[in-house]
Amino acid sequence: MENLLILPHNSELDFSAYRQLGVNVFTTETIKPKDYAAVTIMLGWQNPLSETILNTPNANLKWVQTISAGVDYLPLSQLKEHHILVTNMSGVHATPISQTVLLYALYFMRDLPQVLVNNHKRYWTPQKAFENAFTLDQLNWTIFGTGHIGRELARVLKPFGTHVVGVNRTGHPAENFEQTFAQANWRAAIKDADIVVNIMPLTAETTHFFDHTFFEALHNLYLFMNVGRGKSVATDALLVALQNQNVLHAALDVFETEPLEESSSLWQTPNVLITPHYSAQRNQIGAAWHQIFLANLQKFLTHDKHLKNVVNFDQGY
Amino acid sequence: MENLLILPHNSELDFSAYRQLGVNVFTTETIKPKDYAAVTIMLGWQNPLSETILNTPNANLKWVQTISAGVDYLPLSQLKEHHILVTNMSGVHATPISQTVLLYALYFMRDLPQVLVNNHKRYWTPQKAFENAFTLDQLNWTIFGTGHIGRELARVLKPFGTHVVGVNRTGHPAENFEQTFAQANWRAAIKDADIVVNIMPLTAETTHFFDHTFFEALHNLYLFMNVGRGKSVATDALLVALQNQNVLHAALDVFETEPLEESSSLWQTPNVLITPHYSAQRNQIGAAWHQIFLANLQKFLTHDKHLKNVVNFDQGY
Repeated sequence: MENLLILPHNSELDFSAYRQLGVNVFTTETIKPKDYAAVTIMLGWQNPLSETILNTPNANLKWVQTISAGVDYLPLSQLKEHHILVTNMSGVHATPISQTVLLYALYFMRDLPQVLVNNHKRYWTPQKAFENAFTLDQLNWTIFGTGHIGRELARVLKPFGTHVVGVNRTGHPAENFEQTFAQANWRAAIKDADIVVNIMPLTAETTHFFDHTFFEALHNLYLFMNVGRGKSVATDALLVALQNQNVLHAALDVFETEPLEESSSLWQTPNVLITPHYSAQRNQIGAAWHQIFLANLQKFLTHDKHLKNVVNFDQGY
Repeated sequence: MENLLILPHNSELDFSAYRQLGVNVFTTETIKPKDYAAVTIMLGWQNPLSETILNTPNANLKWVQTISAGVDYLPLSQLKEHHILVTNMSGVHATPISQTVLLYALYFMRDLPQVLVNNHKRYWTPQKAFENAFTLDQLNWTIFGTGHIGRELARVLKPFGTHVVGVNRTGHPAENFEQTFAQANWRAAIKDADIVVNIMPLTAETTHFFDHTFFEALHNLYLFMNVGRGKSVATDALLVALQNQNVLHAALDVFETEPLEESSSLWQTPNVLITPHYSAQRNQIGAAWHQIFLANLQKFLTHDKHLKNVVNFDQGY
């Protein structure tokens, strides 16, 4: 019998559906140390419990289904070594993240910060002040990462008449992008960019990808956004770029350290919108997790190898 | 010779192009009272000057081209009586207004107000707090007004999987709307609505259209938006509706009195986003005005009657 440990607390995960498939279900409330070795499936990843189970003598862990798209926070080399299957939740986040990115862009383009500041003073901003307001057809986007999220973002931008190019590892074509470039060829990818978005998975190659060299290649970039992983951006380099107007505005959902430290100077840097790693959040997210996990569980139990979103350990996503 | 008075100050209006057509150009700086009677064309409308010219003995005014879409602020019956042609700028505003409406919706749906309040305190809002965040496929829209702006808004919402119905005078079909209803049948139109947007022109029929009766028919409407005209909404009724949760959030760009009085209680009503009648603003708007005006001017000078956006005095738009 398979023993499933469910880590997230979400009432939309329908335990009875898993039990009906003959699976024994543990939660963080019901599991005891004596059960650690018996756990074969883990839904979610939560330390220190998950690491402890992985390192239990005679551990039987066979499969980890994350609730995130990125898996950079997992001990990937150890999981690989133990031949443990890892699947992620890629796809579930494309809709909320792409719409949050659209919000970030319109927030600056439609000059909302100016309005909100003046509202506090009950001051009616004169129309003349909005001469720099933009519409989506006026600014070109370069999206780093052409996975589920990047493709969904490119898809919804298209009807606005926005020019969108993409960047991925090899420069292979991707749906909804006018053109794609290889990461190594990033200078060509940002040549006409007004807006740059990072949605790349965090790997050795993408760690501090956005560094001094990158930002210095920009001239008055209208907006830089990061909804991928915080460690892809060298924060000190971004701060310098904002100061030097290589970058005019930034919207950041992820940070090198999370939660963002209270002492971070990002909180008070002008023209920066900070959000607390929330771009994927939405109501009924548990229902979406349930759907993907249940389908994968059925395959896992029947030894069907074609689970959805199997992580490639060598690529790291 | 035609004498053109240009009222807006915008360097993108290319006077030389008008002069090349043999037109004499006045601005507010160059016109003298002795010239008032000679003015045959007015670009824009600015009181008291415009009214004075209209009422000058032996006035020769033949055509008014507004820079707005709505013409409710013009003395329409007097203009009709004098057989003065009126054309508006309908179409120019569809892109910025529809994108501003999308910003309003995402601002609330992606819970940005909560984030911004917490950012002031350098407080990292936990993910749990975003259980009520929505995506655009989850809420149904009813758009009052199916003109240029309404149709553009419906068009850009479609790729998000949003259900959109429209309301117009007669219930005639309109492009990009799944279904349309006549104004008189508004109760049917809002039956499944989560979001209601007003983009109707202001006429006798639409003045205080959104009144106590309308708002009392709503049950926890997620969001009410007004980017049409302020006088279409009975503000006191909306305030009651927000208090009673007939309406949960509101985004208002237009008001019964503009600028909104400093004493208005709207400024501090929770869950209300106020913007200063700016939704149509964007950079290079003068270039868009110029394009439409120049094409109309060429037709006017050659006695071609098919000018763009001719106002129907009986309908009031």
